[in-house]
Amino acid sequence: MGTRLLVIGGDAAGMAAASVARRRRPDMEIVAVERGGWTSYSACGIPYLVGGSVDSVDALVARRPDQFRAMRIDMRVEHEVKSIDLDARTAEVHNLAHGRTYSLGFDLLHLATGSSPMRPAVPGIDAPHVHGVQTLNDAQRLLDDIKSRRPEHVVVVGGGYIGLELAEAFVSRGASVTIIDAAPEVMHTLDPDMGALVGRALRATGVTLRLGEALLGVEDGEVVTSQGTIPADLVVLGTGVRPNSDLAQAAGVALGVNDAVVVDRQQRTSVEGVWAAGDCCQSIHRISGRPVHQALGTVANKQGRVAGLTISGSYATFPGVVGTAVTRLCDIEIGRTGLSVTEATVAGFDVVSAKIETTTNSSYLPSARPVTVKMVAEARTGRLLGVQIVGGPGAAKRVDVVAVAAGEGMDAEDLLMADLGYAPPFSSVWDPLQVAARQIVAQLSA
Amino acid sequence: MGTRLLVIGGDAAGMAAASVARRRRPDMEIVAVERGGWTSYSACGIPYLVGGSVDSVDALVARRPDQFRAMRIDMRVEHEVKSIDLDARTAEVHNLAHGRTYSLGFDLLHLATGSSPMRPAVPGIDAPHVHGVQTLNDAQRLLDDIKSRRPEHVVVVGGGYIGLELAEAFVSRGASVTIIDAAPEVMHTLDPDMGALVGRALRATGVTLRLGEALLGVEDGEVVTSQGTIPADLVVLGTGVRPNSDLAQAAGVALGVNDAVVVDRQQRTSVEGVWAAGDCCQSIHRISGRPVHQALGTVANKQGRVAGLTISGSYATFPGVVGTAVTRLCDIEIGRTGLSVTEATVAGFDVVSAKIETTTNSSYLPSARPVTVKMVAEARTGRLLGVQIVGGPGAAKRVDVVAVAAGEGMDAEDLLMADLGYAPPFSSVWDPLQVAARQIVAQLSA
Repeated sequence: MGTRLLVIGGDAAGMAAASVARRRRPDMEIVAVERGGWTSYSACGIPYLVGGSVDSVDALVARRPDQFRAMRIDMRVEHEVKSIDLDARTAEVHNLAHGRTYSLGFDLLHLATGSSPMRPAVPGIDAPHVHGVQTLNDAQRLLDDIKSRRPEHVVVVGGGYIGLELAEAFVSRGASVTIIDAAPEVMHTLDPDMGALVGRALRATGVTLRLGEALLGVEDGEVVTSQGTIPADLVVLGTGVRPNSDLAQAAGVALGVNDAVVVDRQQRTSVEGVWAAGDCCQSIHRISGRPVHQALGTVANKQGRVAGLTISGSYATFPGVVGTAVTRLCDIEIGRTGLSVTEATVAGFDVVSAKIETTTNSSYLPSARPVTVKMVAEARTGRLLGVQIVGGPGAAKRVDVVAVAAGEGMDAEDLLMADLGYAPPFSSVWDPLQVAARQIVAQLSA
Repeated sequence: MGTRLLVIGGDAAGMAAASVARRRRPDMEIVAVERGGWTSYSACGIPYLVGGSVDSVDALVARRPDQFRAMRIDMRVEHEVKSIDLDARTAEVHNLAHGRTYSLGFDLLHLATGSSPMRPAVPGIDAPHVHGVQTLNDAQRLLDDIKSRRPEHVVVVGGGYIGLELAEAFVSRGASVTIIDAAPEVMHTLDPDMGALVGRALRATGVTLRLGEALLGVEDGEVVTSQGTIPADLVVLGTGVRPNSDLAQAAGVALGVNDAVVVDRQQRTSVEGVWAAGDCCQSIHRISGRPVHQALGTVANKQGRVAGLTISGSYATFPGVVGTAVTRLCDIEIGRTGLSVTEATVAGFDVVSAKIETTTNSSYLPSARPVTVKMVAEARTGRLLGVQIVGGPGAAKRVDVVAVAAGEGMDAEDLLMADLGYAPPFSSVWDPLQVAARQIVAQLSA
C-alpha cells in the first residue's frame, strides 16, 4: 500500500493541497474529510447570496465532492474528525449522517480546519436567530431562517468586512439594519479617520450605525446593548473569527498567535509529516515581520497550493501576507494593504502619513468620483508601509500596486516614479496613489 | 540680475519643471514660451471632447497662463522659439499674434517641445480636412471643422490608442467610421493575437476595420488606399508621433532614437545647462534596457518634475519607463505594460508566455465579464517581462501591478504569491494576473 494523505477540511486550503498532491503524486492515496455538506466554495460570496444577486448556494461551489472523487480523491463530506493520534497515525472520524465513528490511519496529515465566528460571551448568544456566517452550512441555515422569519429588523454585531457586506445585503432585501460596534468607528483594519468615511458610506445606504455601543445580550425580538435595546428579528455576528485549532492542539501541534497553528515557510507544522494551511494557521506579515492570523480565501488558496507542493516532495514557500483586503458597499469601494498608522506604530515603525482627496479618474469626465487615499511610510527612509483607500469605482484594487511595492520594500519616490497606466477614464495623469506618494516625498525632504 | 531659466513648451513637461523650479528657487527668473494658445492641458482628453462627454476645450486645461503668471512665471503663449544659440545663450522668439521676432537671453534652458503627428507622405495629406490631433490648438481646429463639415464619413488612419479613441468618439457622434491600418491587426503595441481581440471590440462598436490596407492618397470626399477608395468627409491621423527636436538638433543638442533628444537620468541633455523632458526626448525602457521614444502624459509629468528638481539644484532621477498604457473602448478595457512577446524577442530575451481567459470578477456574480490576459516572462528565470490585458470593467488597470513587479525584477512565482486584493465584485480568489502567472510557473517547472 502506498502513502496515505489525510486532509481535514474540504474548502480551499484543504482541497487546493489535495488537488496539487493528486496531480503530482498519482501513487498517493488521498482521503479528505469535511464536516459540512459542501466542498471548495466561496464563503466570500455568501453576502451576495443573502442580497439576492447569487441565486443558490450551489452557485458558490467551485468543485463538488463527486468531482474530487473523479480525481481519485476519497472525499467524505458530513464526516467530522473528532481526534487525532499523531504517534499511532490514526484519526477518529464521525460519520454525521450515520452517527457512527471509525478509525482512519494515515501517513501524512494536512490540517485545513478553518475558522469559526467569534461569539461574544453574552446571554442569549446561542439563540437560533443569532447567526455566525462562515461556511455554506451557515449560509444555508441563514437563508432558511430568513425564509421562515422574514426579518424586518436585523442587527449586525461588529463592523468588519463580513458584517458590512451582510448589512448591505439585508438593506437590499428591504430590512431595517443596525450595526453595533463597541469601537468609535467601523472597520478596525483602517485608521479611525478612514473608518469614518466607511461609516458615512454605510449610513448613505440606509444602515443605522451605533458606534461605541457594546452588545450585552440577545433576547427574543431585540438585542440589549450598553445604550438600550434595538429591535432584532435576526442577529448576524461580524466580530471576527478564531482558528479551529482544538484538534491540532489536542494532538500536540504547536499553536501561535490567536491560537492559530504555527507553520514554517513550507506550511509544515511543529510535527513531522503534518501540514496546515488557511484560516486555522498563522502567517507572517511581510511588513511587520510578525505572526498574524489572517483568515482570507486568497491566503487559504495560496497556502494550500504550497502545502500541496511540499506534501508532494516539491519545493515551494509562502512568502507571507501584506494584509490586503478590498470590499464594496454600493458604489463605494474600500481597500487597504500593509500597515495602518496605528498598526505601523505598534510594530515599531516611526511613520509619516499623507491623506489626500482627489478623483478616481480625470476630473473633467462625468464619471469622476471622489477618492481618499491615506498612505503610510517609514519616516527615515520613505519605505512604503501601507495604504488605505475609500472612494468610487476603480478605487479599491489600486491597493494591489502598494501590496506589491511595499512587499518588495519600495519607497514613496519609487512609487511616484512608477509607470502606472493613465487614460482619462481610469485616472488622472498622476494616479491617486502617486498624489499621496508625492505628499510623503514632500514631507521627507521638508 | 538672477539666473534666467527659459522653458520652451507650455504643456506638462515644461510647466511641471517650471512650477517645481519656481517653488524651489524664488530668486530664479522663469520665462516660458508656448506656441499654442493653451498651457498645461490634457491632450489625452481630446477624444472625450470630440465624443461630447467633455463640453469645452477649456475643461481640459489644468492651469491657465494667468495662473502661471500669478506664480511669477513669465508665461508667453502664442510665442514660438525659432532658433537657439547655445554659445550666446539667446533664443529668437516670434510673437505669433503681433508677427514680430525678438531675442531673449537665458542662462538655463529646458526643452519641452513635445511631438507632432506623423503624416504619411501621400498626395493630399496636407488638405484642411486631414487632422493630426496632438495639441489643444489641433483639437480646436478639429472641433471647428466638425461643426462646419458635419462629417458623415470619417476615416482614421492608423489603429493606435489615439486613433481608436477618436474612432469611438466619432461613432458616438453618429458618424460612419472606418479605420485603415497597413498592419494585420490594430494596436501594434500588443501582440497580434491580443490586437485581434481589440479589433473585435472595435467592430462591435460599429467601426469598420480595414486591415492590411495602406493609405495612398487623400482626395476631396474620399481616401485612396491599396484596396480601393473609402468615402471620407474628414480624415484623422493616428499613425503615431515624432519628437519636435529640430530646434534642439539645430542648436547642437544630441538626438537619439527616432530623433528624440538624448537625456541622462537627471533629464540633462548633451549640452551643459540644457534639460529636456516629455514627448521631445527619449527614455530608457526598464525591461529591455534600450532607449525608446514614448510620448505619454504620465512620462512627461514625471520627467518634468525631475527636470524641475535638478534645474533647482536638487537631486532626482527618472528611472525609465516600463511601457504602460491603458485605454477603454465602450465597455472593453485594454492595458499593456512591459514587453510583448514580439518586443521581448527583439530585445534578446528567450521567453515563455501564457494566455488565459477568465472573468473580471467572481463568475457567479452577474457583473462578471470575460477577460483575456497574456503574460510574458523570461524562460530561464521566470522573470516578468510584460502583460497584455483585454477585457471588461476592471481589466486594464491591473497592468499596474505588473508595471511595478516587472520594474522591480520580480518573477512569476512572486506574482503568484503576491497578496492581491480579493472580494467577489473585484476578482476571483486568484486574480486573473495570478491565473496567468500560474501558467507561466507551470511551464517553467514542466
